[in-house]
Amino acid sequence: MKLATIKDGSRDGQLAVVARDLKTAHMADAIAPTLQAALDDWAFMAPQLDALYVQLNAGAARRAFDFDPAQCMAPLPRACGWTIGAAYFPGDASSEPSMTRGACDELLGPCDDIVLAHEEWGIDFGAGVAAIFDDLPMKATPDEAHGRIRLLMLVNDVALRQLMPDELARGGVLQSKPATSCSPVAVTPDELGDAWRGGKVHLRLATSWNGNPVGQPDAGVDMAFNFPQLAAHLCKTRGLRAGSIVGAGPVANRIGTKRGAVAPGYACIADQRRGETSADGAPSTPYMRFGDTVRIEMDDEKGKSVFGAIAQKVVRAG
Amino acid sequence: MKLATIKDGSRDGQLAVVARDLKTAHMADAIAPTLQAALDDWAFMAPQLDALYVQLNAGAARRAFDFDPAQCMAPLPRACGWTIGAAYFPGDASSEPSMTRGACDELLGPCDDIVLAHEEWGIDFGAGVAAIFDDLPMKATPDEAHGRIRLLMLVNDVALRQLMPDELARGGVLQSKPATSCSPVAVTPDELGDAWRGGKVHLRLATSWNGNPVGQPDAGVDMAFNFPQLAAHLCKTRGLRAGSIVGAGPVANRIGTKRGAVAPGYACIADQRRGETSADGAPSTPYMRFGDTVRIEMDDEKGKSVFGAIAQKVVRAG
Repeated sequence: MKLATIKDGSRDGQLAVVARDLKTAHMADAIAPTLQAALDDWAFMAPQLDALYVQLNAGAARRAFDFDPAQCMAPLPRACGWTIGAAYFPGDASSEPSMTRGACDELLGPCDDIVLAHEEWGIDFGAGVAAIFDDLPMKATPDEAHGRIRLLMLVNDVALRQLMPDELARGGVLQSKPATSCSPVAVTPDELGDAWRGGKVHLRLATSWNGNPVGQPDAGVDMAFNFPQLAAHLCKTRGLRAGSIVGAGPVANRIGTKRGAVAPGYACIADQRRGETSADGAPSTPYMRFGDTVRIEMDDEKGKSVFGAIAQKVVRAG
Repeated sequence: MKLATIKDGSRDGQLAVVARDLKTAHMADAIAPTLQAALDDWAFMAPQLDALYVQLNAGAARRAFDFDPAQCMAPLPRACGWTIGAAYFPGDASSEPSMTRGACDELLGPCDDIVLAHEEWGIDFGAGVAAIFDDLPMKATPDEAHGRIRLLMLVNDVALRQLMPDELARGGVLQSKPATSCSPVAVTPDELGDAWRGGKVHLRLATSWNGNPVGQPDAGVDMAFNFPQLAAHLCKTRGLRAGSIVGAGPVANRIGTKRGAVAPGYACIADQRRGETSADGAPSTPYMRFGDTVRIEMDDEKGKSVFGAIAQKVVRAG
């Protein structure tokens, strides 16, 4: 099933079920007020939400309304955990993933502006995929973690590249990771069919910048650590509680990886600049400017959008 | 006022008001079910909670019960944000604080066991103080942040010192920071009287290890960045939402800082080992062992415990 959180002025929004074709939706408040509430008691809530989903897809839901991504908050606008792994790293053979804890007190909706104060910070988009987990005990194995993935979604893990070197020297990124944005809907893994296998999403993640396609790497290719492995890494010294979000990104395929005639391109500007530096001695692609737009979307094998699109504009802070 | 969260089998527990002397408490469920709910609407909730607090202190609350710290969860067992700053660093003159985002999906109660798998990880306690903030906008100044501190509490920011070097090399600590524990109660800044000034808590933080006092540094001394400054640092590129916890620790005073005849000692073993290495070429104090206990408490100027004690045992994971 597909779930979204609708803006209602509250901090956590209202849970809605969204039709498979993303055209209609139905409030789920009779079942669970928020997605966190559903995740807190998933075994009890999920079947009820799924029954509504079946009705909605059949056109038989009583109070269906047109689904509008602009009315969406992040599926989990306020989460209890958000960690992203640099799971795609062509050429690196590290045996442990490099993961970063991000702020989760306010995840942005798919059409919310990216509001920042300075272009000089090196504003970069970062297209990735994220899994929302159920409770996981300390020492959970990747196999155990696999069975506890409840939902998948897309993320725009915005980074401020020019602030990073100083922060890394002080022990970890913080200011250089402003608010992360999420796709309109989060979907249960079964929605992906065969594209969900081996703990990876085997579909291409399309990124456009100011309307120009810049990347379409396959999220299932060159992923050194899958979602269960990333979660198990977090569980080495503590458990994870329901609603914890574990991401992987920016997605990247090795140069030369092609599916048919399609080059992978890039899911973050920093990767493109690294390639330019490597080839030409210096980067030539600038970072984002105020007014720039980014669109991140993933189609299934039939060309249908799975999660809806993240479509944002960079705006100067007032 | 003083607030606690009582274990009831749920993820967020039940909010209670605790008497100033920490002897009695009263459920606050008629006002707000959880501390997060109170923080979400503080202007409306706080006066009601305060009225109950006044009643309780006067012995006039109808259903008061004996307060038992062992029945406490962390004041905010599931928070939306937890960041700790290395605000005490004798000798360092950096102009930006070094801060680390910690896991906040499950903060431990004051008497919960510290369950870990291996002593070889270098199990260290870390006594600190933390502030719970109301909403703060992006670009909030320290002055603005100062007025948005709603509660203060103690934390035991446990660290696994032997896992840190590898993690820092990969970009930031994660596995080396297991669950953080919190004091039985969180208190509004006014509870501290004159000891709360300049955005710092001017009281000594007492740490005992296996019953032996090892440290009593003053949390208001040698604090290079106060709580408002730490929060403002986080607000450079994004806002902070109500319930975000910002800590400072481990508390440390410069060697030679004494109040009367009392040496500051240490609030984490790593600081002691650093001193030993500096003096003798190698550390002599080992890290914690399974079965070890740690107690962290802060008395006011009259010798009364402000927050109650964190009193934990290190236990081997089953």
